[in-house]
Amino acid sequence: MNIIEGSITTPKGFKAAGNFVGLKKEKKDLALILSERLSTASGCFTQNVVKAAPVLWDIERVKTNNDKIKGIVINSGNANACTGTQGIKDTETTAEVFAGLANCEKENVLVCSTGVIGVNLPMDTLTKGVKNTFPLLSDTFESGDSAAEAIITTDTFKKTVCVQIELSGKKVTIGGMAKGSGMINPNMATMLCFITTDANISKIMLDKALYKCVEDSFNMICVDGDTSTNDTVVVLANGMAENEKITEKNADYETFKNALFYVNKTLAVSCARDGEGATKLMEVTASGVKTKADARKMANSVVSSNLFKAALFGADANWGRVLCAMGYSGAKFNPNFVTIVFRSKAGEILLMDNGTPIVFDEEKAASILKETEIYIDIKLKEGNESATAWGCDLTYDYIKINGDYRS
Amino acid sequence: MNIIEGSITTPKGFKAAGNFVGLKKEKKDLALILSERLSTASGCFTQNVVKAAPVLWDIERVKTNNDKIKGIVINSGNANACTGTQGIKDTETTAEVFAGLANCEKENVLVCSTGVIGVNLPMDTLTKGVKNTFPLLSDTFESGDSAAEAIITTDTFKKTVCVQIELSGKKVTIGGMAKGSGMINPNMATMLCFITTDANISKIMLDKALYKCVEDSFNMICVDGDTSTNDTVVVLANGMAENEKITEKNADYETFKNALFYVNKTLAVSCARDGEGATKLMEVTASGVKTKADARKMANSVVSSNLFKAALFGADANWGRVLCAMGYSGAKFNPNFVTIVFRSKAGEILLMDNGTPIVFDEEKAASILKETEIYIDIKLKEGNESATAWGCDLTYDYIKINGDYRS
Repeated sequence: MNIIEGSITTPKGFKAAGNFVGLKKEKKDLALILSERLSTASGCFTQNVVKAAPVLWDIERVKTNNDKIKGIVINSGNANACTGTQGIKDTETTAEVFAGLANCEKENVLVCSTGVIGVNLPMDTLTKGVKNTFPLLSDTFESGDSAAEAIITTDTFKKTVCVQIELSGKKVTIGGMAKGSGMINPNMATMLCFITTDANISKIMLDKALYKCVEDSFNMICVDGDTSTNDTVVVLANGMAENEKITEKNADYETFKNALFYVNKTLAVSCARDGEGATKLMEVTASGVKTKADARKMANSVVSSNLFKAALFGADANWGRVLCAMGYSGAKFNPNFVTIVFRSKAGEILLMDNGTPIVFDEEKAASILKETEIYIDIKLKEGNESATAWGCDLTYDYIKINGDYRS
Repeated sequence: MNIIEGSITTPKGFKAAGNFVGLKKEKKDLALILSERLSTASGCFTQNVVKAAPVLWDIERVKTNNDKIKGIVINSGNANACTGTQGIKDTETTAEVFAGLANCEKENVLVCSTGVIGVNLPMDTLTKGVKNTFPLLSDTFESGDSAAEAIITTDTFKKTVCVQIELSGKKVTIGGMAKGSGMINPNMATMLCFITTDANISKIMLDKALYKCVEDSFNMICVDGDTSTNDTVVVLANGMAENEKITEKNADYETFKNALFYVNKTLAVSCARDGEGATKLMEVTASGVKTKADARKMANSVVSSNLFKAALFGADANWGRVLCAMGYSGAKFNPNFVTIVFRSKAGEILLMDNGTPIVFDEEKAASILKETEIYIDIKLKEGNESATAWGCDLTYDYIKINGDYRS
């Protein structure tokens, strides 16, 4: 697998555009993606009972086993969530407008929205925006970049990634972009993630690969514990790389899945790193656990602990809060055999060894925790399963950003 | 039921003391409770897998159906949690020292600790402290007050309550004190709560009453989502009011249980109000819900949402975050029939009416949310069950307090 500079426009046959159309005050707020050929599509969506109108639309679109997605309309600035029947109509209208321009059916179009909840979309602005943006669609790197910029809300940076692999002698590319910064919690993050690939793969195998990748990436990040109404990860595969079609779990499938996982993980970790107000990324790995499910619970519980997140912000090696969060995670384990290590590029420090607290050098601990990427290793002696979760610190700026988001 | 000025020393036969013995830097850090007669005891404890040494000790003590608790030793400044076998020994030694002074067995003594995790207790200091504090035990209001002061950590005020009822012609008193401010989450709060009563009641009925009361009080508050290692609610009933012994669910039991609930609820709400860094108390009631369990899930999810807590701090009527938190609570409901009202003593405002967002007066909403007690009413149309939870806002000071707690 080669990691290359690129994004959603790098795979063959994909165009994108990003534009400011008036949904936000001044920043780019509309992105379009267009595939030359109808694409096989797969998606993972929020598990919140309250699902935004576009999520309900997209779930229906990716349900069936056809190759039929032509493009995606993504607006930021308004989530079209909790907007009643009008919201449903607005999503359909958006798909219709794009379909008219792309010469396809509205059912071939996905729609995604992110932003404020509970306010109806200004449809005149959006419709005009889609029409004005459509001519900007191109396959250049800049267009992909512009689309990545247009989908962000409180994010502080664009999130893109691109990899290449070889399948049955053909070069296959996977590109991706994501947004997500607040309202981030397992199952899933508040995030929109769009992945394009020219791989030739069946709907069933694409679904299988995506679900597995999301489980260990977007479902393992937490910024604030709030699972949003709009979470969406979509992958479009248009087959234009002309590799031998993947229809079963063979070597090509494994290669593709591993590359897709890299794309998902890179974007998911970017969201954790860019958590609202965050100054540090933390990666928590629980190993030696009896079951995978318990390992996931423990790792997720630690990255979600407000108390530990605040301690991390203060560069305070408060390992007691790590053990405490493991303890209320719902996982079963014997606390008397836990080992906890904190690491960063400044070094590593053992804090609890096989259930015994270690008297440690506070100065050394502080210097390790002052770095911007912190690794927390939790080692148990209960089994062989492990899981990794990502999160960030809890800071003054999180309060500032969320104490007055709407104004 | 009469609410009176008083605390744990008001019921007949109970003495208390609070003292500074050197576990903290300068504030009171040791409280003792002594009952003239051996008391029937009941307790609820943390559901965290990682239980502090004193919690493990107390669980054993209140398990059996005997009237045998003579007193309680409570230290603040050190939680004696994650302290290995030494921690277990230290709890036992503490009980032994008190038992020697009170002329009882160590098994007649409960021990509670709160404070930093993972550091062994300085036993010389604590032992000497217990010995020096024992002679201060008295049944005055001031002694109860002093004990309430000695158990707090990051709390900003003492939490005490006292009520009187009449059972079979006898005056029965229930007094309580609590501490809790951070690491507060349902099942249970980080909190220590001590309730004394002179009621004459069987162990079985006391257990029944306490479990029910805790379920709707301490298990319905949240400050930061972190369930601590030390949570404890204990009630001692010494029977000295000489009412006819309660041994079944009769009218006296109901009267007692209601009074006990008032005591629990008052102390639990005090903890939510005094949440670390909090400027506002919120009370969230979900009604019209199909099951009690779902109503509890929804109310708890809203008081636990970091995003909504931050919005509350900013006096931002962000009802979308309320609906969103309901949506990921795990409860099942139809979002199209939800009504949401925010209230305070400055008035009330309808934000979502039967699934439809209401265009509202932002100025009026802000004036309502600027108050220090905010009520959130969530009304569904799915059934007749309801539940109430309490929480607080998420503020800069929470970060400040928890970014550097240990130093």
